[in-house]
Amino acid sequence: MMRIGFQRVARLVHHKALQRNPHLLPGLHQASAFGSSTDSLVARFCPENTDLKDYALPNASWNPDMLSLYQEFLEKTKSDRWIKLPSFKSNREHIQGLKLPSGLVAASDKQDWRIFTRCIQLEGQGYEYVIFFHPSEKKSVCLFQPGPYLEGAPGFAHGGSLAAMMDETFSKTAYLAGEGLFTLSLNIRFKNLIPVGSLAVLDIQVEKIEDQKLYMSCIAQSRDKQTVYAKSSGVFLQLQLEEEPSQQQ
Amino acid sequence: MMRIGFQRVARLVHHKALQRNPHLLPGLHQASAFGSSTDSLVARFCPENTDLKDYALPNASWNPDMLSLYQEFLEKTKSDRWIKLPSFKSNREHIQGLKLPSGLVAASDKQDWRIFTRCIQLEGQGYEYVIFFHPSEKKSVCLFQPGPYLEGAPGFAHGGSLAAMMDETFSKTAYLAGEGLFTLSLNIRFKNLIPVGSLAVLDIQVEKIEDQKLYMSCIAQSRDKQTVYAKSSGVFLQLQLEEEPSQQQ
Repeated sequence: MMRIGFQRVARLVHHKALQRNPHLLPGLHQASAFGSSTDSLVARFCPENTDLKDYALPNASWNPDMLSLYQEFLEKTKSDRWIKLPSFKSNREHIQGLKLPSGLVAASDKQDWRIFTRCIQLEGQGYEYVIFFHPSEKKSVCLFQPGPYLEGAPGFAHGGSLAAMMDETFSKTAYLAGEGLFTLSLNIRFKNLIPVGSLAVLDIQVEKIEDQKLYMSCIAQSRDKQTVYAKSSGVFLQLQLEEEPSQQQ
Repeated sequence: MMRIGFQRVARLVHHKALQRNPHLLPGLHQASAFGSSTDSLVARFCPENTDLKDYALPNASWNPDMLSLYQEFLEKTKSDRWIKLPSFKSNREHIQGLKLPSGLVAASDKQDWRIFTRCIQLEGQGYEYVIFFHPSEKKSVCLFQPGPYLEGAPGFAHGGSLAAMMDETFSKTAYLAGEGLFTLSLNIRFKNLIPVGSLAVLDIQVEKIEDQKLYMSCIAQSRDKQTVYAKSSGVFLQLQLEEEPSQQQ
């Protein structure tokens, strides 16, 4: 398996983009070099007809807070340009027809691959979450209800489970807002523990896109905003996925 | 469920310690105010006779790198004061007879609680890891082999799964080195992706203990140290667990 640093992959991809588009100069905004608009990324990410199971739908384990806030945001998808993101079992399903940039060779055997935040399929025991994304404002909201398999201190969610939830929400936001593909850094300040089974609301905002990087912030708090669980920032590297060669000859 | 900020709990616990030990002045090193030595913490954490299942033991899923480095460290436990830490299903089992400080009320029903990094019990599919701790040098090594349920980008471990592994290794190290109980901050810089199924070696060092906080650093890399996966720092708050009232009347 080839191992190659993010920054080196970025330079390679940038170089290839320049070769394809010789009129582009280094330093030009990379999102425009890639040429994918947020709308086209969202359209591809949210297929209207699919047989894939969407794990970001209400189930019997969702607490009343989670359920009612979900309904509230679902209403906003009708009028306010919020989009409910589907959540499939693996990122392989999210990027069908695309592949990682050259230099990052993925294992491709027939294992039961799962995206980490969907690793536990028993309803209510692990991660319950749904992400809503607002394309024009480049922000997201994640409703997160940690189950008893996510425990750290007895009765409370593990700090690492919140870190992973933040990283995952950053990741989907970064991808849709500007082809952010890899976490470069993640800085978290923890303020309060999240009781297992309760709702934490993560508000994510893309602060700026600069030098092939997306800078994002997040605050995780109770629904009434009276308790801040944690604040974080994340930086993601922009890299364009490549089209898979068609398998039909 | 009562929610109370870490810093407020720290002040309360500090105040109670002062009441118990009126000769201690604020600003005094908290580890000595608590009075638990690393040796007594380790002795309690590593029970010699227990029926609890230890998940940090080799199984058929461990790759040859993981297995041989495990054997190497196991040898060091015989002569070099390294200690292999057991890893039970939940922190509830790790702190039997103790409870969180007042103000942090844990749910206590009969759910199937699991520590997040042992949330997946299928061998090789999720977290495979073992932590070795060196008490006098206040450092740890974690051998971490992510399985296919920890995927982020296709074929590679999710950044959040490494974040959680770092947080958990920091957490156990902080507790044993100086009763560090809660993550206050976690800062990670990611350098390379970890291929699923391969070994990442996390080297953790307690850098200093000051003002009731433990400051730690971590580097995660391949066994040959040729590939750095990520570097991180973590700050943990020192807080003493309280003795559970005996249930035998």
